[in-house]
Amino acid sequence: MEFSHIDKDGKAKMVNVGGKADTKRTAVAYGKVTMRKETLNAIINDEIPKGDVFTVAKVAGIMAAKNTSSIIPMCHNIFLTGVDINFESKIEKEKGIVEIFARVNTIGKTGAEMEALTAVSVAALTLYDMCKSVDKMITIENIYLMEKFGGKSGHWRREDESLHNNS
Amino acid sequence: MEFSHIDKDGKAKMVNVGGKADTKRTAVAYGKVTMRKETLNAIINDEIPKGDVFTVAKVAGIMAAKNTSSIIPMCHNIFLTGVDINFESKIEKEKGIVEIFARVNTIGKTGAEMEALTAVSVAALTLYDMCKSVDKMITIENIYLMEKFGGKSGHWRREDESLHNNS
Amino acid sequence: MEFSHIDKDGKAKMVNVGGKADTKRTAVAYGKVTMRKETLNAIINDEIPKGDVFTVAKVAGIMAAKNTSSIIPMCHNIFLTGVDINFESKIEKEKGIVEIFARVNTIGKTGAEMEALTAVSVAALTLYDMCKSVDKMITIENIYLMEKFGGKSGHWRREDESLHNNS
Amino acid sequence: MEFSHIDKDGKAKMVNVGGKADTKRTAVAYGKVTMRKETLNAIINDEIPKGDVFTVAKVAGIMAAKNTSSIIPMCHNIFLTGVDINFESKIEKEKGIVEIFARVNTIGKTGAEMEALTAVSVAALTLYDMCKSVDKMITIENIYLMEKFGGKSGHWRREDESLHNNS
Amino acid sequence: MEFSHIDKDGKAKMVNVGGKADTKRTAVAYGKVTMRKETLNAIINDEIPKGDVFTVAKVAGIMAAKNTSSIIPMCHNIFLTGVDINFESKIEKEKGIVEIFARVNTIGKTGAEMEALTAVSVAALTLYDMCKSVDKMITIENIYLMEKFGGKSGHWRREDESLHNNS
Amino acid sequence: MEFSHIDKDGKAKMVNVGGKADTKRTAVAYGKVTMRKETLNAIINDEIPKGDVFTVAKVAGIMAAKNTSSIIPMCHNIFLTGVDINFESKIEKEKGIVEIFARVNTIGKTGAEMEALTAVSVAALTLYDMCKSVDKMITIENIYLMEKFGGKSGHWRREDESLHNNS
Repeated sequence: MEFSHIDKDGKAKMVNVGGKADTKRTAVAYGKVTMRKETLNAIINDEIPKGDVFTVAKVAGIMAAKNTSSIIPMCHNIFLTGVDINFESKIEKEKGIVEIFARVNTIGKTGAEMEALTAVSVAALTLYDMCKSVDKMITIENIYLMEKFGGKSGHWRREDESLHNNS
Repeated sequence: MEFSHIDKDGKAKMVNVGGKADTKRTAVAYGKVTMRKETLNAIINDEIPKGDVFTVAKVAGIMAAKNTSSIIPMCHNIFLTGVDINFESKIEKEKGIVEIFARVNTIGKTGAEMEALTAVSVAALTLYDMCKSVDKMITIENIYLMEKFGGKSGHWRREDESLHNNS
Repeated sequence: MEFSHIDKDGKAKMVNVGGKADTKRTAVAYGKVTMRKETLNAIINDEIPKGDVFTVAKVAGIMAAKNTSSIIPMCHNIFLTGVDINFESKIEKEKGIVEIFARVNTIGKTGAEMEALTAVSVAALTLYDMCKSVDKMITIENIYLMEKFGGKSGHWRREDESLHNNS
Repeated sequence: MEFSHIDKDGKAKMVNVGGKADTKRTAVAYGKVTMRKETLNAIINDEIPKGDVFTVAKVAGIMAAKNTSSIIPMCHNIFLTGVDINFESKIEKEKGIVEIFARVNTIGKTGAEMEALTAVSVAALTLYDMCKSVDKMITIENIYLMEKFGGKSGHWRREDESLHNNS
Repeated sequence: MEFSHIDKDGKAKMVNVGGKADTKRTAVAYGKVTMRKETLNAIINDEIPKGDVFTVAKVAGIMAAKNTSSIIPMCHNIFLTGVDINFESKIEKEKGIVEIFARVNTIGKTGAEMEALTAVSVAALTLYDMCKSVDKMITIENIYLMEKFGGKSGHWRREDESLHNNS
Repeated sequence: MEFSHIDKDGKAKMVNVGGKADTKRTAVAYGKVTMRKETLNAIINDEIPKGDVFTVAKVAGIMAAKNTSSIIPMCHNIFLTGVDINFESKIEKEKGIVEIFARVNTIGKTGAEMEALTAVSVAALTLYDMCKSVDKMITIENIYLMEKFGGKSGHWRREDESLHNNS
């Protein structure tokens, strides 16, 4: 078992990717936030203009994606060619659910998995922050990598993807 | 239903807390990371010196806690009097599980919930990053606020805390 | 004539405010952005949901206000108790005009003028960035301090305030 | 009318530039700061060594140019090959005027307009900050893009450039 | 022997200072940079306007002092009431020597030692960067804490201070 | 004598490297930290798990390397392909000595000298911070560039390297 972030003596290091080729790479991450259904309704119904809370969360997620290498110690600072974050919301089993999808594109020697996961996490934290005054039971659940393209390992897609279709 | 982060027109704002008193406040957040049991074993057994991966994740979480107001748009920049992050790991139902507990202390006009949640999230993302070369199925689950002390609302503890005792 | 940021030898320094009292302080800054009227119409009419461009600009301005001491070399890092940014738009003399008002509150030993001015500037730059693909002639005009409260000098209001009522 | 930063549903996004070619690009931005003539004289005459205030403003502008993608939400993080900022000062109609010119070079898939405009804005804010203790009427005026080279649209120069030759 | 940054299990933590009193505190740090005498002469003689290189280094040091808690993992984010950095240069034993003195003031629960030391280090690195194209043998030497005031331990001054009077 | 960071008028600028070729470059920097021998023993003996203090210092150094262009004003923001930091410790002449070696790799138009030097400096400052509660006499000594590869000037190695073999 070989950890690329850990050297022979088990000490942390930032992996040298200088020998890797520049390729187009995409990573898609997923996250789910659950809350009281009243909280979600307040966000999406007419009193609270739809999109504003989500826009703040989206901006936070995009900025965090660009800032990932300052947040995650062993991440390379890479040039992101594009970042997109989308939200889907629904009421299910009496709970409000917001699903977050972040797609990050790069051209370079390392993938953008951590950037996509960081974007989802920070978007989720921002939703939490925007709504925590009315709901202390908000929970961030099931953040993971859904899919990636490019690089030596090529296309990969998480098999148990049903996870993000059911709460 | 009143959202403190959203003004009368539904536009985002950063709440004015100038009228609140300075009190000692503590927030404790929880997070869970699941992985293949082989991944966890590799981290905690003798080949890989115990603590190193966790130390990197802890440093990342502490630095993120201090940086929360730069990551979460509507968070106040507050003085943190202390940050502590602990990890507990176990094998359960053939999966490796790492539980993360972040305790953040502050003295001020707003609580440190977002700082504790950000610390947990970034520590979890760092674990993910350190191990992703050997395990693409790592999942960050169940990040939420466990407990808070201080401020006008005083002590609060999440009731369904069993959540973080079972995978 | 005595510049508080420049010492006796004319060298830059960061002023020592340790002897000042903690008081509630507010600063209000103003900025104006002009563009083609078609650009403004596209932002505010139905094709482009009103508020989204402004929400992104507001989030950028609020985050910049909190980050002012990392951007402006001699600014103190202060605790902001609140930040609010508002936009007013109109068509005047065949040009689209967006006026930006940033109000920043703090309790401390120095005022929040630079935070309010930075919030306005970054909100203006973000409007520029969001619209530059359709309008290269956008101009940021007339950024200045409108009003301040608190501190030793007390209330102050810019006299020629008509500036920000006429284009 | 098509805004590159806004998707079909009017939601903000960070544009994907992965399909664009790498070319040398240059952007030149302009800004003007007006102040009392006594303030300008104090900066440039012998009591205050010429250049010090301008050097602080230049350093702030250069650092901000490099940091633009952390300040402006939808800006790409790009590699800047060079940044230069120059100041020209004069007394005109009894007012002190400082003109700021920022030239930013990059090689990449997107231009450096926002970097040049951010450099000018932050240099102007820093001049403001350095002098605000003696002059509350300082105004930042007329920040705009003067000229750009490279990229698909090639050379572009603002036509009403007389703007930055007269106060 | 008790390390305040290391808990009972030897794991890193950010110390809780919530029980400490707010007091005025000052820290003074020292650093020395040696270079070829030609390099120093070029900086300080007439060809290169005196002060410019030093001003850039001073600005970098002041900004780093404010940013210390983002650079040093276990440092508290504190409010600095003032930062001042001074340089003294001389030719000694055929080498050019620049001595750097950073004084940082704060009012709070922890001292500003790390802020003063970080200011000196970054000012020294900036001198290095500004001059490295003409001198690869520049060396940063003898960075340490000279003196501190305030806090429970009161006044302290390094005894072997002769260190910073002789090269 | 020509300083690449200073223009014809002696004003600071950020050099334009747009005409340089992309090459693989490596920089190795060295630093030494001295402390009481009891302090070093406490770090490396069994009471304090070996590696933890060093791991925190390593993480800090790696993160600082990536952040160099935000810390050093005239440094280009470059893509680092790898960063590694190692520590060697010994007791010599009754003092504890920690030697720090940072190796930074990049592919680009400018070298990574400043990144390597910044990594060493911040790792040293972090050691200082972790141990300062038990030892006020810690001194950071002799930070310099040991070796560099790549770029127009090719391989270079500091001749008086004996410096870092003897205290």
